[in-house]
Amino acid sequence: MKLPPHITEQQLSSRLDRFEIETPSWGYADTGTRFGKFLQDAAALTIHDKLADAGHVHTLTGCCPSVAVHVLWDFTPGTAPADVKKFAESQGVRIGSINPNVFQDQAYKLGSVANPDPAVRQMAIQHLLDSTRLGEALGSDTLSLWFADGTNYPGQGHLRRRKRWFAEALQQVHAAMPASMTMLVEYKPFEPAFYHTDIADWGMACALARAAGPRAKVLVDTGHHLPGANIEHIVAFLIDEGMLGGFHFNDRKYADDDLTMGSIDPYQLFRIFYEISLAEHDLGGPLPIAYMIDQSHNLKPKIAAMIQTVMTAQEYFTKALLVDHHAIARARDSGDIIAAERCLQEAFTTDVRPFLGRYRAARGLPQDPLDSHRQSGYEARAAADRLPRKPRASGSYA
Amino acid sequence: MKLPPHITEQQLSSRLDRFEIETPSWGYADTGTRFGKFLQDAAALTIHDKLADAGHVHTLTGCCPSVAVHVLWDFTPGTAPADVKKFAESQGVRIGSINPNVFQDQAYKLGSVANPDPAVRQMAIQHLLDSTRLGEALGSDTLSLWFADGTNYPGQGHLRRRKRWFAEALQQVHAAMPASMTMLVEYKPFEPAFYHTDIADWGMACALARAAGPRAKVLVDTGHHLPGANIEHIVAFLIDEGMLGGFHFNDRKYADDDLTMGSIDPYQLFRIFYEISLAEHDLGGPLPIAYMIDQSHNLKPKIAAMIQTVMTAQEYFTKALLVDHHAIARARDSGDIIAAERCLQEAFTTDVRPFLGRYRAARGLPQDPLDSHRQSGYEARAAADRLPRKPRASGSYA
Amino acid sequence: MKLPPHITEQQLSSRLDRFEIETPSWGYADTGTRFGKFLQDAAALTIHDKLADAGHVHTLTGCCPSVAVHVLWDFTPGTAPADVKKFAESQGVRIGSINPNVFQDQAYKLGSVANPDPAVRQMAIQHLLDSTRLGEALGSDTLSLWFADGTNYPGQGHLRRRKRWFAEALQQVHAAMPASMTMLVEYKPFEPAFYHTDIADWGMACALARAAGPRAKVLVDTGHHLPGANIEHIVAFLIDEGMLGGFHFNDRKYADDDLTMGSIDPYQLFRIFYEISLAEHDLGGPLPIAYMIDQSHNLKPKIAAMIQTVMTAQEYFTKALLVDHHAIARARDSGDIIAAERCLQEAFTTDVRPFLGRYRAARGLPQDPLDSHRQSGYEARAAADRLPRKPRASGSYA
Amino acid sequence: MKLPPHITEQQLSSRLDRFEIETPSWGYADTGTRFGKFLQDAAALTIHDKLADAGHVHTLTGCCPSVAVHVLWDFTPGTAPADVKKFAESQGVRIGSINPNVFQDQAYKLGSVANPDPAVRQMAIQHLLDSTRLGEALGSDTLSLWFADGTNYPGQGHLRRRKRWFAEALQQVHAAMPASMTMLVEYKPFEPAFYHTDIADWGMACALARAAGPRAKVLVDTGHHLPGANIEHIVAFLIDEGMLGGFHFNDRKYADDDLTMGSIDPYQLFRIFYEISLAEHDLGGPLPIAYMIDQSHNLKPKIAAMIQTVMTAQEYFTKALLVDHHAIARARDSGDIIAAERCLQEAFTTDVRPFLGRYRAARGLPQDPLDSHRQSGYEARAAADRLPRKPRASGSYA
Repeated sequence: MKLPPHITEQQLSSRLDRFEIETPSWGYADTGTRFGKFLQDAAALTIHDKLADAGHVHTLTGCCPSVAVHVLWDFTPGTAPADVKKFAESQGVRIGSINPNVFQDQAYKLGSVANPDPAVRQMAIQHLLDSTRLGEALGSDTLSLWFADGTNYPGQGHLRRRKRWFAEALQQVHAAMPASMTMLVEYKPFEPAFYHTDIADWGMACALARAAGPRAKVLVDTGHHLPGANIEHIVAFLIDEGMLGGFHFNDRKYADDDLTMGSIDPYQLFRIFYEISLAEHDLGGPLPIAYMIDQSHNLKPKIAAMIQTVMTAQEYFTKALLVDHHAIARARDSGDIIAAERCLQEAFTTDVRPFLGRYRAARGLPQDPLDSHRQSGYEARAAADRLPRKPRASGSYA
Repeated sequence: MKLPPHITEQQLSSRLDRFEIETPSWGYADTGTRFGKFLQDAAALTIHDKLADAGHVHTLTGCCPSVAVHVLWDFTPGTAPADVKKFAESQGVRIGSINPNVFQDQAYKLGSVANPDPAVRQMAIQHLLDSTRLGEALGSDTLSLWFADGTNYPGQGHLRRRKRWFAEALQQVHAAMPASMTMLVEYKPFEPAFYHTDIADWGMACALARAAGPRAKVLVDTGHHLPGANIEHIVAFLIDEGMLGGFHFNDRKYADDDLTMGSIDPYQLFRIFYEISLAEHDLGGPLPIAYMIDQSHNLKPKIAAMIQTVMTAQEYFTKALLVDHHAIARARDSGDIIAAERCLQEAFTTDVRPFLGRYRAARGLPQDPLDSHRQSGYEARAAADRLPRKPRASGSYA
Repeated sequence: MKLPPHITEQQLSSRLDRFEIETPSWGYADTGTRFGKFLQDAAALTIHDKLADAGHVHTLTGCCPSVAVHVLWDFTPGTAPADVKKFAESQGVRIGSINPNVFQDQAYKLGSVANPDPAVRQMAIQHLLDSTRLGEALGSDTLSLWFADGTNYPGQGHLRRRKRWFAEALQQVHAAMPASMTMLVEYKPFEPAFYHTDIADWGMACALARAAGPRAKVLVDTGHHLPGANIEHIVAFLIDEGMLGGFHFNDRKYADDDLTMGSIDPYQLFRIFYEISLAEHDLGGPLPIAYMIDQSHNLKPKIAAMIQTVMTAQEYFTKALLVDHHAIARARDSGDIIAAERCLQEAFTTDVRPFLGRYRAARGLPQDPLDSHRQSGYEARAAADRLPRKPRASGSYA
Repeated sequence: MKLPPHITEQQLSSRLDRFEIETPSWGYADTGTRFGKFLQDAAALTIHDKLADAGHVHTLTGCCPSVAVHVLWDFTPGTAPADVKKFAESQGVRIGSINPNVFQDQAYKLGSVANPDPAVRQMAIQHLLDSTRLGEALGSDTLSLWFADGTNYPGQGHLRRRKRWFAEALQQVHAAMPASMTMLVEYKPFEPAFYHTDIADWGMACALARAAGPRAKVLVDTGHHLPGANIEHIVAFLIDEGMLGGFHFNDRKYADDDLTMGSIDPYQLFRIFYEISLAEHDLGGPLPIAYMIDQSHNLKPKIAAMIQTVMTAQEYFTKALLVDHHAIARARDSGDIIAAERCLQEAFTTDVRPFLGRYRAARGLPQDPLDSHRQSGYEARAAADRLPRKPRASGSYA
């Protein structure tokens, strides 16, 4: 592995040590498409299953110490936050971001905080406030907000009025957050709303985050862009505006496909990491960015897919650190496009797997966490435990 | 309404009389997105509910005499085809296309006729053969095939081998079809498969239909195209190749949104109808095209949405008939782009609603079927009947 | 024509009287694609030709009193601004927006205000400052800025540094603008830069406009969006942020096709006008929005295409005014999606051409300006005058 | 470099020896966008310049023995084919595909073989026939056809009639081709036509190629697809249909950006090569595919960009050969998605640059042809020779 002059293998390792990736509780459960779910025997059912899986992933990878939780799917009535927090600790992980759900209840048919019915808007805000409290109780420092609000047909909604409702709701929630909590506002151009989405792009998320308050930032889900969007440019722009809060990583070929990170366009993933690496180089230290996974492992075994994802994240993050900042600056200054491009390409082409093997070994971790998982028998044990508890059917499109 | 020289209002009416639109049984049932279904009190539960709804739509519109049925969702074990056929007749409709389902069963996780497991391929083919038999028993003359087959990740499948499996399966099914039956092969670029779809575009559907046999044609779902695709061009091309079998109508802004026909881009709908109208003008008579609706009324009341759709179809079909074929031919021959374009625009801009009111009145139909439906109390009665039979929950994303 | 309760035909006319559309000088000149230009005999060559054409368009339509000028293409060395201003007046028009050009000079190969070379950045800023002065001399109150800056390859540019250069340049220009001048900042996702564009979307334009100063707003070119973008939503959002400055109208099917406004998706055009109309209804008066055309009439005769465009703009603007604000508000408040949608559809379907004929006649204008132009012999006279002055060749792709 | 069991380094080299890449004459000349060309001092002006450049590229890379020529741009009146052929040989290259031009002449404003004017259609066909003759005289065995035909506005053209004109023209040209010549039919969804393109996708190209005759195949330009198209799937499908004729390689992020191959999405390039490699593995030998480059080096130095492209092609072609066919087959058969995907990813991640260095050295070639070129002084010499011959200006958008 050829290192650029500005970094040693030790510094590389040291930067990697601070590269933590949050896995989502729902990524361990059965998910699917509108046409149905293909159930997996070992898929997690309860928050305890999910935390156990997340703990297993962290044990093997060493870089996934926190777990995103979902208020509705994880906290059934009667689940005590303190117990969950304690159970997480017993599995070697902690609770990361808290994710409210204001889209699943039948009341949200026409929206949550932008619902034309004030009672529903209030119900949604209350859920957000409750989630903030729950997050506090769980020790979470991140309130991660995704809204399904939007309309399906032209004329259905009053777009500017809905924007105002959103601003008011976010302000109210921001005001109620403890000082240690950050609000992340996610954007998405479509789905499940098909004509307009209230927070459709980074610009809208940024405007609403600013309206909410100083601790609100933008959450970039890599699958939530229109075809052709230059995501790394958006990332760089948000960094410069001081508004990049974090990522939901996944990959896509068409829409919000929620495939494994880097599985379709690894060079784009590398370029995103490069913009972060460049900004940290320029600014002299790590940026406070939440790196989170949000994928839908419809077909792949869930834990294996999660480990594969984490390994991919480490691989491309490492490659991005290998770009020679001085050489590329020289090439840019002299207008040498090919030389500048080659700086990226050489880092991208470098095979960092041997280094990552050494890196993991030095930390007492398996060199290939995916193989270790496959040989661990974990999945078979999980299936044996969970299968008897599973519902038989998975719903139907119509 | 300004009529072009080549057509009288009577001829217009006469052409409209032959413009029949098939409604789908599943369009009357609760559907949703991967994030959940918003249940409607009046949504149909059984094939009898659906046929009653379809009969109601036909009674009000006069142009929806047939109903597409779905083998899996409509024919639960014990449902006798003869009874269904008879019940349909009692509601004033007949069974139209028969739609097999080889995507919902857990066995189809990795595909149906392109599954790597030969046993699953065989199971899928058997279902297609059974569906053909069922269609025959129901008096259906159309076997409408949509496959969810595809892969989610590069490397997952052997693309050319899967193509061969598809060709073989379709040939086998074609050979088993009664002589009166047409096979329609649908294409779709993605969803629920996110890396590749085995029948991704019209070219693949056309090649596979030709491989299947002479009674196999291509089914164009207007929502199944990549951004920017010129659908009316594909329609014209398929007509010229003798391979256009029919349509699944709906509209979209992003992906396969399954919105109401013409709700997003009515001019595109008009242009599709214009290509058909032009071909029929050139060829001297109606083309054997199956006009079918395939939408997902997630938020709109289902029957009202269906009637709105049918009225939209008639409206834009009528407008397309108003293009002055001679004037546009003259403009084209002389290279007068603006004059040619204006021929379309003038037909499109013409308000044909008064004519359609007269047309319906002359046939004993309500002039505004949607208003009539709303005032009929049908929905309230359906809700009262169906609500007690409904399941309480609708599933959850994770 | 059915009018909604809130508006009379006189009020409609009165609103239309204030609906002015600016035509661009370059829309009268030969333009093309990278594969070449198809030259038109009557295409304008000089600023005088262009102003004469614009005056002709205004004479026939009555709503195009101003002309956008282009610093480089219109003001060859020796052209005195005062003379141009006077000549414009003699043609019945005035100078509208002033459009600098910092993309054509060979010096701008790697960018203008974001060029890595400080000398080129300075040269670009100087041109912008000179353009501001020129605009002042011409009586223009709008500085319209489009930048071709961007990069073609990953790694080529330092994205955040380029953003800073942009902010500084715009601040400097804003500071030099007279108090009566507005700066419009245009965005575009790609072309002629193909990897990243420095001002790629409305969010970036908005951030940079805010950084520039209080008289900087965002310019929405309807062709400058990624596939699927909901433009009317962006328009509504910008209005609410107080940041919508104006439009460059045109239509597109794929990329920045620069086709005639409304020629591909007239319903989208209608929806954009509806959002403006709704905002004006809510706010009680016309918004200060610059309506400008920016098209490339590669094949259509230029003046005819311009008149067709203006007529289309008036047609869909009028339709948008016909939406019944009270009825749609009621439908929205009660969650009646179909009724709300129908409010839009009914206005869209209404044939307003007879009204527009009356409207024009009442103002002494031809009822069909396009026909009048065609019969006027203007184009033949222009061709006779200009053909002898034209260069013979049009360049070649390679 | 880890080799899969089925291949040795010698076999890899041997396959690479047969991997020839054709460079296009126009890739050495100044090209640009509709907004202008940035002229390069060393850009080629004449066919002799271009052949000299191509010879230089072949000398350094060893795998570019043929040059695509362009009838209009390369063969000015008075250029004797025999002389060109001889000059090419003197530069160590031969003439590859012959590319007619039926889009630049002013007569083609409304199309070439689909022009509504029969005289223009005839003129276009004559040029195609002349090009065939010219190709024969030059020793070319490939007639490469790209048509700019299409329409800009709905209504402008009679789509089915234009299809017929195309079929007739291609049949006529096919009939005139010598038996040794292959016709390649290229498709493109848009640009320079913006409403419809007569040969819009692979399906249309395939239908027209089949209508033309047995020696007509489809040409895949990697930049000519709608967003989201799965190009490698199309490639696999065409191979199975026996209709894949060749490639025009380039890369893109938005539209037909004509960037350097692999510069935006190298994994896609790898997957395309993988499908070819898999087919050759299944079929037991190399497929007769023409690998050609078609890029527009607007900003990069042309020769350096070409060499970079060729090196990229070799790099990803080699990586594709490293996929373990047996391992991936086992994974597929057992439904192990992750294992199958990893087979691709491991080959992709392998750093093949050391091997390619050895491979080149063994053939007496520079290990890094790009560095060798940069140090050769070729560009400075070319600039000194060509600059005095260059026109000063480059045209203007308007």
